[in-house]
Amino acid sequence: MRTEHDALGSRQIEDKYYYGIQTQRALENFSISGTTIADIPSYIDSLLQIKKAAAIANHRVAALGDEQLSAIVLAADEFIHSHKVVQFPLDIYQGGGGTSTNMNVNEVLANRANEILTGKKGYESVHPNTHINMCQSTNDVIPSAMKITAHRMLGDLEKALLRFAADLGHKQVEFADVVKLGRTCLQDALPLTLGQQFSGYRSAFERSARHVAEVRSHCLELPMGGTAIGTEFGTFPGYKEAFYQALSKNTGINFQPEPNFFDGLQNADFWISVSAALKTTASLLNKLASDLRLMGSGPRSGLAEVKLPAVQPGSSIMPGKVNPVIPEMAIQVYFRVLGNDLSITRACEGELELNVWESLILNCFSESSRLLIECLPLFSEKCLGKLIANQESCAQSAESSLALSTVIATLFDYKTASDVAKKAEQDGKSIHQVVVESGLLSLEQASELLDPKVLTSPELFHGLYRGKLHV
Amino acid sequence: MRTEHDALGSRQIEDKYYYGIQTQRALENFSISGTTIADIPSYIDSLLQIKKAAAIANHRVAALGDEQLSAIVLAADEFIHSHKVVQFPLDIYQGGGGTSTNMNVNEVLANRANEILTGKKGYESVHPNTHINMCQSTNDVIPSAMKITAHRMLGDLEKALLRFAADLGHKQVEFADVVKLGRTCLQDALPLTLGQQFSGYRSAFERSARHVAEVRSHCLELPMGGTAIGTEFGTFPGYKEAFYQALSKNTGINFQPEPNFFDGLQNADFWISVSAALKTTASLLNKLASDLRLMGSGPRSGLAEVKLPAVQPGSSIMPGKVNPVIPEMAIQVYFRVLGNDLSITRACEGELELNVWESLILNCFSESSRLLIECLPLFSEKCLGKLIANQESCAQSAESSLALSTVIATLFDYKTASDVAKKAEQDGKSIHQVVVESGLLSLEQASELLDPKVLTSPELFHGLYRGKLHV
Amino acid sequence: MRTEHDALGSRQIEDKYYYGIQTQRALENFSISGTTIADIPSYIDSLLQIKKAAAIANHRVAALGDEQLSAIVLAADEFIHSHKVVQFPLDIYQGGGGTSTNMNVNEVLANRANEILTGKKGYESVHPNTHINMCQSTNDVIPSAMKITAHRMLGDLEKALLRFAADLGHKQVEFADVVKLGRTCLQDALPLTLGQQFSGYRSAFERSARHVAEVRSHCLELPMGGTAIGTEFGTFPGYKEAFYQALSKNTGINFQPEPNFFDGLQNADFWISVSAALKTTASLLNKLASDLRLMGSGPRSGLAEVKLPAVQPGSSIMPGKVNPVIPEMAIQVYFRVLGNDLSITRACEGELELNVWESLILNCFSESSRLLIECLPLFSEKCLGKLIANQESCAQSAESSLALSTVIATLFDYKTASDVAKKAEQDGKSIHQVVVESGLLSLEQASELLDPKVLTSPELFHGLYRGKLHV
Amino acid sequence: MRTEHDALGSRQIEDKYYYGIQTQRALENFSISGTTIADIPSYIDSLLQIKKAAAIANHRVAALGDEQLSAIVLAADEFIHSHKVVQFPLDIYQGGGGTSTNMNVNEVLANRANEILTGKKGYESVHPNTHINMCQSTNDVIPSAMKITAHRMLGDLEKALLRFAADLGHKQVEFADVVKLGRTCLQDALPLTLGQQFSGYRSAFERSARHVAEVRSHCLELPMGGTAIGTEFGTFPGYKEAFYQALSKNTGINFQPEPNFFDGLQNADFWISVSAALKTTASLLNKLASDLRLMGSGPRSGLAEVKLPAVQPGSSIMPGKVNPVIPEMAIQVYFRVLGNDLSITRACEGELELNVWESLILNCFSESSRLLIECLPLFSEKCLGKLIANQESCAQSAESSLALSTVIATLFDYKTASDVAKKAEQDGKSIHQVVVESGLLSLEQASELLDPKVLTSPELFHGLYRGKLHV
Repeated sequence: MRTEHDALGSRQIEDKYYYGIQTQRALENFSISGTTIADIPSYIDSLLQIKKAAAIANHRVAALGDEQLSAIVLAADEFIHSHKVVQFPLDIYQGGGGTSTNMNVNEVLANRANEILTGKKGYESVHPNTHINMCQSTNDVIPSAMKITAHRMLGDLEKALLRFAADLGHKQVEFADVVKLGRTCLQDALPLTLGQQFSGYRSAFERSARHVAEVRSHCLELPMGGTAIGTEFGTFPGYKEAFYQALSKNTGINFQPEPNFFDGLQNADFWISVSAALKTTASLLNKLASDLRLMGSGPRSGLAEVKLPAVQPGSSIMPGKVNPVIPEMAIQVYFRVLGNDLSITRACEGELELNVWESLILNCFSESSRLLIECLPLFSEKCLGKLIANQESCAQSAESSLALSTVIATLFDYKTASDVAKKAEQDGKSIHQVVVESGLLSLEQASELLDPKVLTSPELFHGLYRGKLHV
Repeated sequence: MRTEHDALGSRQIEDKYYYGIQTQRALENFSISGTTIADIPSYIDSLLQIKKAAAIANHRVAALGDEQLSAIVLAADEFIHSHKVVQFPLDIYQGGGGTSTNMNVNEVLANRANEILTGKKGYESVHPNTHINMCQSTNDVIPSAMKITAHRMLGDLEKALLRFAADLGHKQVEFADVVKLGRTCLQDALPLTLGQQFSGYRSAFERSARHVAEVRSHCLELPMGGTAIGTEFGTFPGYKEAFYQALSKNTGINFQPEPNFFDGLQNADFWISVSAALKTTASLLNKLASDLRLMGSGPRSGLAEVKLPAVQPGSSIMPGKVNPVIPEMAIQVYFRVLGNDLSITRACEGELELNVWESLILNCFSESSRLLIECLPLFSEKCLGKLIANQESCAQSAESSLALSTVIATLFDYKTASDVAKKAEQDGKSIHQVVVESGLLSLEQASELLDPKVLTSPELFHGLYRGKLHV
Repeated sequence: MRTEHDALGSRQIEDKYYYGIQTQRALENFSISGTTIADIPSYIDSLLQIKKAAAIANHRVAALGDEQLSAIVLAADEFIHSHKVVQFPLDIYQGGGGTSTNMNVNEVLANRANEILTGKKGYESVHPNTHINMCQSTNDVIPSAMKITAHRMLGDLEKALLRFAADLGHKQVEFADVVKLGRTCLQDALPLTLGQQFSGYRSAFERSARHVAEVRSHCLELPMGGTAIGTEFGTFPGYKEAFYQALSKNTGINFQPEPNFFDGLQNADFWISVSAALKTTASLLNKLASDLRLMGSGPRSGLAEVKLPAVQPGSSIMPGKVNPVIPEMAIQVYFRVLGNDLSITRACEGELELNVWESLILNCFSESSRLLIECLPLFSEKCLGKLIANQESCAQSAESSLALSTVIATLFDYKTASDVAKKAEQDGKSIHQVVVESGLLSLEQASELLDPKVLTSPELFHGLYRGKLHV
Repeated sequence: MRTEHDALGSRQIEDKYYYGIQTQRALENFSISGTTIADIPSYIDSLLQIKKAAAIANHRVAALGDEQLSAIVLAADEFIHSHKVVQFPLDIYQGGGGTSTNMNVNEVLANRANEILTGKKGYESVHPNTHINMCQSTNDVIPSAMKITAHRMLGDLEKALLRFAADLGHKQVEFADVVKLGRTCLQDALPLTLGQQFSGYRSAFERSARHVAEVRSHCLELPMGGTAIGTEFGTFPGYKEAFYQALSKNTGINFQPEPNFFDGLQNADFWISVSAALKTTASLLNKLASDLRLMGSGPRSGLAEVKLPAVQPGSSIMPGKVNPVIPEMAIQVYFRVLGNDLSITRACEGELELNVWESLILNCFSESSRLLIECLPLFSEKCLGKLIANQESCAQSAESSLALSTVIATLFDYKTASDVAKKAEQDGKSIHQVVVESGLLSLEQASELLDPKVLTSPELFHGLYRGKLHV
């Protein structure tokens, strides 16, 4: 045990911990959720990268000595690689705009740097505030670390989306010749191919990947350098430029200062945009998953257009039942992302010089991102990959649709077509049957013009239209 | 035109208007939405009832003269019956916690009371603040008027819900013998009757009616008498008692003061509870509407268990298509109520002595209520009433379900049943066929024990179970 | 390692685990969130209590042997007391309506019961489906276990709320004589005592406790016995009654069957009501916390009416700063509960015979409950308990308020008072000064009638009013 | 009265109406909200522009005759300029994905075109489906009309935002020299100028304008040509190209077909992005309005940093009170936009080939847009323009802040500064006093280094830092 002091008094701390008294106080003040900042490893990394770059910058402007710099850099690199869970134990729920998190990092680095320099923990050579936090404030450190974290997580998400879209593209090709019934308002409509349907899904997820990439690009501008309220008070001349140089070099990413630091600290609306991209992605995933549930409904008395792979028995009481469990997992991811979007939106309402709810934003953002990043490949592997089309049932439903009367409207007019559809419905016949029986078309004409496959292609259909002149 | 004055200056007002300068200013400050307070007629009524009861109470404690009282009461009664749209033109969006609305009512009554007493508008005999607003503050008037309004609207909603539940009850009886397939995870499960399914809907809406009645009962306690911040400052001895007596007598409803006026003005969370009741109702309506869309999907290639009445042609391009338009209207009502719940929840975050967002709460609450009150009977008339069960298709799907293997699990064990289900699925046979072919049951036993109708009734099933001993 | 089989194939399982193949499959299908069902210990308890009660009931109707019963009961009791984290490892995100969770419990109990009876794991004597799940379905087990869990958690929340309200009551007494300025629209209004303000908070949290108790009472009705879709298919005569007897006896809580099992399984709207109670509670907590932030703003240039205890240094850059970190933690709890309410609301949209999103509901409900249960006592201990009133600054602001002109409106009329207020504002004087200088009141009268303390009490004020006649 | 017929029967229609039987049916089916499609005039315009362009395109491919074309174009142009409210009376709540709205337009144009050609209403020469709806489906018409509408409304919003940002820029200049106290966590922090604070607001609204412009650019791609489900079935060769040519020429806007029509009809997530832009805008407006309420709190016992113009008396009971009513109106706009965002998000969950909830999306989108478009200039005119800084009170608070100790931390170290702050707080002195009394700085040094104005500028501060070396 060692004793640390601050303005409010002192605390005993087990010597195995590098964190100090302010972290200890925060542990006493905030343990409510069971989720800690170390549950978001890339956030700790981002904080450490910031501290390392700040030390390098402060050394360059001659505010830190050589030994101090070496020790701080060594310490930061060590924790980037290990020990996070033990040394960064703070609850993600924190008041004070993340001061506790910032001080946790400052204390860990200071104690470790001192240990490197002197053989024991303490703040003589390197002080958490004076040296580690030099030229910084919690208020510019935390939102900057969050943006660096988002840059990494959104990059992972973009990759996952592109892979997912590619997997959908494979199914698009595989299902190119499966003609099926389209449905609007859940009612039988015109035919399309299952491949066309999947081209829509693929297109949507490619769009989603672009959306994620677009918001990600805004992560490159940081409020670092604005310090407490945007005035840059407390920074040394040359520090800001040196900081961005060091950070960009160390991370390999071209970070830059925000054009208006006051705006950067006052407003957190950037996270509404990020969350909207996550929500859009989750909404598209929910749409796909819900469609697969509908198309896979049955097996005997549902749409039964596709067969989802069985990944586990479906019921504890009904033997043989197989449930669409993977789509259902994905749908629940959407529900959670939806709730997180609201929490984030509400938390973006800050006040005056600073938004102090960023801990909560980070918590919700990182959860939503993680759920999507984990869910997408699992969905591909366990569901999409082995998805099988029920060609026969698809063909049958396409042929039976009363909406094939649309062909008659195109060939003749809406009123004639409407009468055909009415008769087909009343007599329980197909449009094909009624059209031939009523003499509107010959059997050959009907077979050609009412072939669902033809109706799925503008080119085939335009050929068909030219045929119209002969009717 | 006449000229009115206030502390900030003067305004010209067309003499056909009874409202005065403060209303005029509010018209200039707040015209953004196109929705006015007069779009909620019972809100204006509630305000007028409060002013009338306050005048009676003030007269009783000798603070108002006989002539003043008569004129105010006469004026209030007139506007309860007419002219609202013209005289109460304020936008529902208002800053200031509804001061403008309160002053609109004060001014209209004062001008009209003066006109009654003197033949012309003006404030000599009866002043908007000194007399009409006597012993009151916007801060106790507005939330009280809102609760009185809610009492009326929730009463209408409760009635609509009880009628709707009764209509569902009629369908429950009508569909008592329609055996159909139950579905969980959209997969074929055990059979039930359509009547049983509708008993669930009926039960849910009865519950919803009780929920609405429960929150409605909390509308009887008002903050009237608390004045500006709950201290009752500005009221005369005896006023409060006389006010509640007069209000209860005039409205026929037993209103009472809230036990803690500070709480009553500080907190608007009551409206979260009201909104939750509306949201629950809308969610149940959405569930019913969504189920009807699913059950009515087809007509050829969907579940096709029920046939929704055609109330309009379904497509501008596909002749003969009929869409579930009434359920879809109801589903959109749910979406709006959902959004309103969020707006209300956010607006319930007040601060210090008063929640000043009540205009917005009223706007959202009254819209949600109205949508539900209008939608429910339309849903009954246009959709539920003429809903037809497709008995044949229901029966067929019930018999085909692989989940009938559950019977085998009950008679033998889970493993045996699982094998039967697997075989039925692979060979495209019914459970009945497989069970007989494999010799597990005789044809008679199978026909008796696998009859879907039997499986829908605990009594029939328990008879069946006793039969188990003989297997 | 041992091998287990199911309808889809087999899996190797480490022999230290009591769970079996279906749990193993679910681990492969659903690991996305890092949150497991064992993170909600009372949920596992509830499931085990259900299995135990079902075994007792099945034994009573002679469907289970004596030895089977003893082994199952022994196994259930063991896991109620230990080993949950290891044996119930499933992700809270699951498709299939909780089948995996139900099977996890079935498998753990079956393997352990077999071990008790035979010395080794396996399903010969006691089978997960045939015996442990006898007369049950995932579909009645999961929602029942959730309600039992909610009964426990809401009980804890109710207790926490009552304690919190009591703590607020202590401050109400302590602050009874602190006269301060009331504020509406953030503008200076009439005076009240800090005690009165806290009486409002106390009243609100007492109401919240009643609200929680009210929804909790609905947790006593369970869908147990409805099995897969509400028809009770698969239960033996006498089972249901025996089940509820056993469950109520074992838990000491009087559980009962829901009156309509179809409704019970179709609809999850109960959870919207539960969540609304949590949201209301969190909203009130947010109001209190936000007010404390406002009242504690400063210390030099804010309202500075109260002094929040310093629980940690407030800034890494600004020495001596103390932040309202505990209220800020509580505010973030509100933001999360708000998001969870939306996720729950969305998840309550089920379809046809079953809501299959209950895993997600449980996840969000239990998180919100836990956050509130943990946050409330911490708030009391770290913030409320040591909260100090700044009497001097409170008194000063009460006396300076221009809204004291309301007294003049009561004594004379609104116009006179408005002129007084205007003059006071223009000349930078107090209402007291202007009133005396203008000769409206004598110095003695003014000192008596404009004493803020007097204005906080209806009784004192009514005495004051009688004095009016002499003015 | 005239009689019209459709597949379901006939209806009598007053001859003054150009709409026909399907509109009449929709009026009977959907009157619940009081809001009609004509409440969004640019939506009707957009629909008419689509019909006109389609007629031109169909004429070009020889599917419509010259006379038909002239009549349709003439009719469309007429209604673009007048009579909308009477002729387009449908409730915005509609089932069927907007079929009723599309048919309303088809019927109005057909009846008017016939009238032009033949002197009376009817469908002989021009039929609503066969001619006006030629090559179209409700399913491509409605989402296309919505995007065209959004293009117009978002253009108006972008302009309003740029003007608003410019107005903020004027205040930034005006307030450039007003030094005030910055606050984080509502606690006194470092000084900044009011101009710097406003530069943050300006920067935020400029960003918001860019955000709106960015989503607006996506309105240019339409699903027109996809017809019912994206296959383009029912279009003639050459129609699509001719349609986009005509539409772009007539509107002066370069519209183009979406790259994947299946995606275009399946998914409505575009509206989540649009709504996110509106929500972000409203959130920033809420932030500004909330800050102004805080900064204008008082007048005697609040922050009182700025004085908001009095636009109406503030209280019916407290004479002289002035409330921040314009910011409060704006805050309520945010609450509504927040709710609309949720409704839109929920409505974007479509299914299979089409999202059929677009009516609701349009309703919410157009309301949010309108509220913002109306609110922003009113906010500028009634509040921002006449906003006055309270220089004296700002200066005083900046000088009194204990956070000026940060200067000492920069000059010496954190520990020294912390002791200074503690002493200042305990003794009720300024940092300046303590520093001089304790001999840390000379009076001259202190006056120079602790001048709040200096602390607001990096340049001045960096000069200050160089001074540090001499300390």
